[in-house]
Amino acid sequence: MQAKNRPQGLKSIKPGQKSKTTVGTVDSRILEYTAGADPRLDLALTVDDCVGTAAHAVMLSRMPVTPPVLTRAEAGKIIRELRKIIAEANRHAFKISTRDQDVHLAVERRLTAALGDIGRKVHTARSRNDQVAVDLRLYARRQLLFAMEETAKLSEVLVKFAKKNRSTPMPGRTHMRPAMPGSVGLWASSYTEGLLDDCALLDAAYNLNNACPLGAAAGYGVTLPIDRKLTSRLLGFKRPIHNVLHAINARGKTESVVLFALGQVMLTLSRLAADLIVFSAPEFGYFTIPAEYCTGSSIMPQKQNPDVLELVRAKAARVFSSAMMVGEITRGLPGGYNRDLQETKAPLMEGISETRATLRILPALITALKVNRSALLNGFDAEIFAADNALDLVRSGVPFRTAYDKVKAKIGTTASCDPAASVGRKTHLGAPAGLDFGMLENRAKSVATFAGQERKRYCHAVSNLLGTTYSEKG
Amino acid sequence: MQAKNRPQGLKSIKPGQKSKTTVGTVDSRILEYTAGADPRLDLALTVDDCVGTAAHAVMLSRMPVTPPVLTRAEAGKIIRELRKIIAEANRHAFKISTRDQDVHLAVERRLTAALGDIGRKVHTARSRNDQVAVDLRLYARRQLLFAMEETAKLSEVLVKFAKKNRSTPMPGRTHMRPAMPGSVGLWASSYTEGLLDDCALLDAAYNLNNACPLGAAAGYGVTLPIDRKLTSRLLGFKRPIHNVLHAINARGKTESVVLFALGQVMLTLSRLAADLIVFSAPEFGYFTIPAEYCTGSSIMPQKQNPDVLELVRAKAARVFSSAMMVGEITRGLPGGYNRDLQETKAPLMEGISETRATLRILPALITALKVNRSALLNGFDAEIFAADNALDLVRSGVPFRTAYDKVKAKIGTTASCDPAASVGRKTHLGAPAGLDFGMLENRAKSVATFAGQERKRYCHAVSNLLGTTYSEKG
Amino acid sequence: MQAKNRPQGLKSIKPGQKSKTTVGTVDSRILEYTAGADPRLDLALTVDDCVGTAAHAVMLSRMPVTPPVLTRAEAGKIIRELRKIIAEANRHAFKISTRDQDVHLAVERRLTAALGDIGRKVHTARSRNDQVAVDLRLYARRQLLFAMEETAKLSEVLVKFAKKNRSTPMPGRTHMRPAMPGSVGLWASSYTEGLLDDCALLDAAYNLNNACPLGAAAGYGVTLPIDRKLTSRLLGFKRPIHNVLHAINARGKTESVVLFALGQVMLTLSRLAADLIVFSAPEFGYFTIPAEYCTGSSIMPQKQNPDVLELVRAKAARVFSSAMMVGEITRGLPGGYNRDLQETKAPLMEGISETRATLRILPALITALKVNRSALLNGFDAEIFAADNALDLVRSGVPFRTAYDKVKAKIGTTASCDPAASVGRKTHLGAPAGLDFGMLENRAKSVATFAGQERKRYCHAVSNLLGTTYSEKG
Amino acid sequence: MQAKNRPQGLKSIKPGQKSKTTVGTVDSRILEYTAGADPRLDLALTVDDCVGTAAHAVMLSRMPVTPPVLTRAEAGKIIRELRKIIAEANRHAFKISTRDQDVHLAVERRLTAALGDIGRKVHTARSRNDQVAVDLRLYARRQLLFAMEETAKLSEVLVKFAKKNRSTPMPGRTHMRPAMPGSVGLWASSYTEGLLDDCALLDAAYNLNNACPLGAAAGYGVTLPIDRKLTSRLLGFKRPIHNVLHAINARGKTESVVLFALGQVMLTLSRLAADLIVFSAPEFGYFTIPAEYCTGSSIMPQKQNPDVLELVRAKAARVFSSAMMVGEITRGLPGGYNRDLQETKAPLMEGISETRATLRILPALITALKVNRSALLNGFDAEIFAADNALDLVRSGVPFRTAYDKVKAKIGTTASCDPAASVGRKTHLGAPAGLDFGMLENRAKSVATFAGQERKRYCHAVSNLLGTTYSEKG
Repeated sequence: MQAKNRPQGLKSIKPGQKSKTTVGTVDSRILEYTAGADPRLDLALTVDDCVGTAAHAVMLSRMPVTPPVLTRAEAGKIIRELRKIIAEANRHAFKISTRDQDVHLAVERRLTAALGDIGRKVHTARSRNDQVAVDLRLYARRQLLFAMEETAKLSEVLVKFAKKNRSTPMPGRTHMRPAMPGSVGLWASSYTEGLLDDCALLDAAYNLNNACPLGAAAGYGVTLPIDRKLTSRLLGFKRPIHNVLHAINARGKTESVVLFALGQVMLTLSRLAADLIVFSAPEFGYFTIPAEYCTGSSIMPQKQNPDVLELVRAKAARVFSSAMMVGEITRGLPGGYNRDLQETKAPLMEGISETRATLRILPALITALKVNRSALLNGFDAEIFAADNALDLVRSGVPFRTAYDKVKAKIGTTASCDPAASVGRKTHLGAPAGLDFGMLENRAKSVATFAGQERKRYCHAVSNLLGTTYSEKG
Repeated sequence: MQAKNRPQGLKSIKPGQKSKTTVGTVDSRILEYTAGADPRLDLALTVDDCVGTAAHAVMLSRMPVTPPVLTRAEAGKIIRELRKIIAEANRHAFKISTRDQDVHLAVERRLTAALGDIGRKVHTARSRNDQVAVDLRLYARRQLLFAMEETAKLSEVLVKFAKKNRSTPMPGRTHMRPAMPGSVGLWASSYTEGLLDDCALLDAAYNLNNACPLGAAAGYGVTLPIDRKLTSRLLGFKRPIHNVLHAINARGKTESVVLFALGQVMLTLSRLAADLIVFSAPEFGYFTIPAEYCTGSSIMPQKQNPDVLELVRAKAARVFSSAMMVGEITRGLPGGYNRDLQETKAPLMEGISETRATLRILPALITALKVNRSALLNGFDAEIFAADNALDLVRSGVPFRTAYDKVKAKIGTTASCDPAASVGRKTHLGAPAGLDFGMLENRAKSVATFAGQERKRYCHAVSNLLGTTYSEKG
Repeated sequence: MQAKNRPQGLKSIKPGQKSKTTVGTVDSRILEYTAGADPRLDLALTVDDCVGTAAHAVMLSRMPVTPPVLTRAEAGKIIRELRKIIAEANRHAFKISTRDQDVHLAVERRLTAALGDIGRKVHTARSRNDQVAVDLRLYARRQLLFAMEETAKLSEVLVKFAKKNRSTPMPGRTHMRPAMPGSVGLWASSYTEGLLDDCALLDAAYNLNNACPLGAAAGYGVTLPIDRKLTSRLLGFKRPIHNVLHAINARGKTESVVLFALGQVMLTLSRLAADLIVFSAPEFGYFTIPAEYCTGSSIMPQKQNPDVLELVRAKAARVFSSAMMVGEITRGLPGGYNRDLQETKAPLMEGISETRATLRILPALITALKVNRSALLNGFDAEIFAADNALDLVRSGVPFRTAYDKVKAKIGTTASCDPAASVGRKTHLGAPAGLDFGMLENRAKSVATFAGQERKRYCHAVSNLLGTTYSEKG
Repeated sequence: MQAKNRPQGLKSIKPGQKSKTTVGTVDSRILEYTAGADPRLDLALTVDDCVGTAAHAVMLSRMPVTPPVLTRAEAGKIIRELRKIIAEANRHAFKISTRDQDVHLAVERRLTAALGDIGRKVHTARSRNDQVAVDLRLYARRQLLFAMEETAKLSEVLVKFAKKNRSTPMPGRTHMRPAMPGSVGLWASSYTEGLLDDCALLDAAYNLNNACPLGAAAGYGVTLPIDRKLTSRLLGFKRPIHNVLHAINARGKTESVVLFALGQVMLTLSRLAADLIVFSAPEFGYFTIPAEYCTGSSIMPQKQNPDVLELVRAKAARVFSSAMMVGEITRGLPGGYNRDLQETKAPLMEGISETRATLRILPALITALKVNRSALLNGFDAEIFAADNALDLVRSGVPFRTAYDKVKAKIGTTASCDPAASVGRKTHLGAPAGLDFGMLENRAKSVATFAGQERKRYCHAVSNLLGTTYSEKG
């Protein structure tokens, strides 16, 4: 039955049935254990594997050896066949079996089936190790650019929200208690700036990832005059990784850096989520999360729960800790390729997937957020102005510590002040009345612009390589 | 097309396509984000959910209220329908859609479709929170028992291997350098004892997990006289969790403990794997891993790589760190249910799956391991007997520190000794010639016996509950 | 010299000065790197090292070899000298220098200085590896017993607080929003039961730790007829670890289990802390944390911050993650001793220290907590009774799902109910009006009793061994 | 008093004594719990705190308010007093008591003691939150620059070692088994390139850290016209953090990024260490670690153990996991300052200290490493040339996959080749005979140059601020 042949990553956790594997041959059980989730996960790498193979074939066809390893005509045939595989992959028709083990052998098998000896030539001077390294870097590059654009988009939504509510007073809190007068604009744009700072890490991860390992072979190079600069350029990478052993050793570490950068974005969002959960609780009521972004309860008819935001908080833990998991897999490994590295693939893909899903769900939620001005004003009590009062005494010449003591002695007896007036007096750089929203907008725009240009540049390179229009959609 | 209907946990990571979700309604996108992988993962919980629902229905039908919430006849109808769902689940025909969100609503929907108002009664006095808590505890209980049996089995294989090679000398190492004479029997049975110690943690996790949360509802109980001791007994639990809020708060922490116990097993196996990788390298050659347990290289024709063992080492990192990930998700959460907890389900299931796959692959590998006596003897040099020599001086009355200095001064000039003789002289408790294999075998047997009896007891309870023979296969 | 008394562990992080080490000889720099924090940390192990050495000396003196390695009179002299060292350690007068490297060499050096050749005999048939393993197990055993007693104490304080406020209504929450009526008694005793469940893990860690590694030597035993059962018994351990290589391999893993058990206690406390931080915020005001448990702000005169509770939340992250750090250090290590294991010592000691400090600070805080009944009652709105209302319809024969829909349709229009009455109706096992505080008290008592008896048993064994009264204070 | 000089961080772990704290007043116990290790750790921040305070005082004295909060003469007096404190700190004479809580209050107390009301003015418009944020950024900036220089230094040592041994053949390995011919030059310079890639992350961390939080006050700004650009410039920061709430929220995350970057360096070094441990084992003998870098055994007279390298491997786990620990502390925290953040300080300082100690110990070890050419050549067998042989067939026109099969069929029967010749044939970019050592040297130099210039720039700024020569030593 066909369903039985499909990759089932979690087959073994189904209760009440005897797994086929336990009656399989030694060989099939080993294959299942070693291939793991690759046949399923690698589907996401099919296009990348074809693109990498195309570049490798072109390079082989230009290699100055006689007889040529691959003629230009043969390389052309390979690329035509790769285009067919890409088309199949795009309509989800390309399959990888456990017997194939992974996308690399599946593609090579397919080329050989279609092209005979020409297909048998394509793996010349290359190993699966550097092939998977190339695939994952192409994959991560694409995903990072999408993540940058999505982070920029969310930043823009947050700054727009901040601008709209720039003069709405909001009790500033430390230790979850009222501290000093703040504003909705200050609160929202603090997360904008947080995300923009995280973009610097996404950028560092992008740069680290944007180097081509192809040609490393098993990590020790080959005795053929391959042109690693050419393949790097054909694939749109900024540069080849130099040392071929380092090209192999970098696997796992690069993934860890990518996940850490995404994890930092998630940490920022986890605090935004935590704030929104508290501030939309009835005891605060500062914001209302529209009903369509909430979910109910199976037993309590009245419930409108902020499940989306709670999941953001928890997914942050998963993405962030996966950066550690992946880095730890590499720690203390002997140099050169070790199969341990295969286990870094699933966390990388899941971490990217979860982060991007989160980045895509939040902009609409933020836009739909209702700001309850009266609830915000109700949050102000007299004590929240204590520091303001002390600084007013300072203005009249009292040393601050003395002013602090005087105000402290009268806590509980002083009248409240006007929140809007207090907020309006904080005019210095970065304070509620001193925020430069335009600067934040510009920073967000430049992130989006960079990502768009990079993708355009890369799609152009791949289009040239494949001889057909190549584009990407998030 | 049918394939489109199948759960696709990683759909969003496929490049080159526009996800359906981005054009969905707000509602559908939120649903997809909040349901997450549940529709796929929950398939593994279908039987458990039915069993838990059966116990709840029986309890409702015995509840002393007038009119009865559920008559005994109605409870009988529910159980008959649940048996049908279980049969469907066992042949992989039961489906959970994203619209269902999870197995709980899918089962309730199905009961309502089949039984009308009777189905609409089954969720009385229960919430999804305590339902998923019950399901996961039933699931974890079953899996832990299988894991115990598999750990016992591997322990037995290791002790058998140790007995067979009890008098084969093996260079004992510290800091990866030759240290003192050891034996293959000592080496192999050290991992037996390691696994048996880990079983004590599996047992602690089992006990912690073996308490019934059902009836906690949303964590604050209900205004109906439900009988929580009855449902606990019907489901074969040792006891109900007492405080209903604690029943909810325990979620996530219990999963973390289960994963940690499994992670300890994996840590033990990671060191066994690390040893085997080194000791089967050509520079050592102590052991030969049969070719069918090795995999080759795509570029190097000569390669026979210990991929299975490398994956054990890496999977240990994944399982172990998932215990932390899951525990961290709960840290600092406000009391009571929070949706964050949903994110603990996938790590739990994957951790169990990976650990059990590892426990099942290793016994045959160990059994097939070839011991190369001559390579082991070649590993002995004169220096490895230095401590023996010092202790021989001690026997003649020289203070140890003086003996140590004397031997040290002659390092490089002394003759080698007979490894077998040295090993034979170490007769004290637990030393190479003082090992009690029978005791280790008995410990392994008692773990397997315990697990078997527990499963029998539980299957008996469920069979009684469902009125049909219920059994489990790993 | 005074400089010797200064803390050395962090010397290198002092800015603006040239570290002595960089001008030291190769040897001294290596020594400083490898000894690390041991000279400082090992001070906490001095008594344990002396106790372990005493048992080893007694065993050597009874070993059936001629001439005896150690006479009974010599063993007696050693024990007398060890008593002096213990006395010095108790008054903080015993020192360990970087040149000593660790407590083991410091004690041996001291014995040799005092007793000459007798001191040079004490290290016969033992290595530092099994010595540090013994010391850490003695240390962890003592600390775990104190931690158990402190956890039991805090459990008792929480159950006392719960009993006192058993009928005080408190809005039960899920997703941080009002859910169903609960009570202060339910809330507080949920953490009692959480801590008592954690005690089962402390107990598992205690049992795992309560086995004696002494006599493992370097992990391969010795050619002398040492009596490992005797030393185990003299030191009050339950049993010797059997396989001598396992005795060495267990290091690090045991520490990881201890830290994980403590980490679970901390996770429970982190949620208690999170609740208290929220519930004592002015928007809730359910509880008042007395001023002496709060700290102020340097700039805001009005501030009373719950710093203690915030630190509990953060320290939970540190202790919990250290369990993983320590386990990871062992992952994939080759079998036998590796120096990597030294790095598990500081996390173990710090994790124990932080957990116990937290367990000691909270009882008084809980006891001093002021319960504000009116604020708690103000937290109830009409909607929180929605599930109650639906269940009331169920009592009149309406299927639950129908009742749920009916109540949902009227949300916002129904009147509030009496919180106390609602809580009083939840009488089933573990619900607000069905709590068995006595059972929780008994569980807490039995934990404290067990710990007390174990310590008494151990102190008795050590007193016998040393020939003097040995006691322990937390 | 002498007791004040004793290390306090771990006081509570000393066995056998009753801690003073348990008999202290409530207040003193709370203070000890909340201050934690700050009085000890903050000593490393004393100079930074004085520098930050000097900038703040200068800014206050230029603030356009009448009467001035601080006159220029008063600011001058403050700076003179701060210079005295710095001098005391440099000779370890400045103390922080538990009563002071931290360096900030200790410095303010001292200024007040010396200058009266002038001292009482210095905390105007500033909170401890932004003060500690400034101090830690100054501290991290200095430490990162040292770490960059030390990483560059180690890179240079490795490339020098690589150049010296560029043509020494070395069996290239994958899966710890011989794979293809490599060279010592390739092996050593792979770690050079690894470290240089890590420097890009150090650089990203440096940039993220190089923004000034001062003036954020409690995270909501102040009602005085402070000049945040001025303080940022006086302190040599690249820019102020803009949004004042973000300035507070960035704490913990910044530390996490710094630790992660250092952790990546440690991961690279952990693999270098793992290789050296294996390759210096007698079964390999490729390298000899000089005796002065090894340590012995207490029981085995012959032992020379690579303890330094094992500790590198383990310390990598500690530093790397601390990045996660610190990030997790911030996850899900409500916005604004929370005391949880204090717990990020110790991991930051320890992570920096351990990484730098490792970076300083390795250059001499690498330089002293003895390369054993004959052992390296002995490591080559015939099979290691299998891929070369297949590629030779490819050159004669055989498709690679066919060539692979042909060579595979003859494994075990072919003669060995000349390692040096094979290595010499691998001339493409980054292969053993195609390495560009000069490029790696230049990259290392540019890292060192950048770090040196940045420190010079910063020291110049601080010298101007303090009116005295300020310099830093690592």
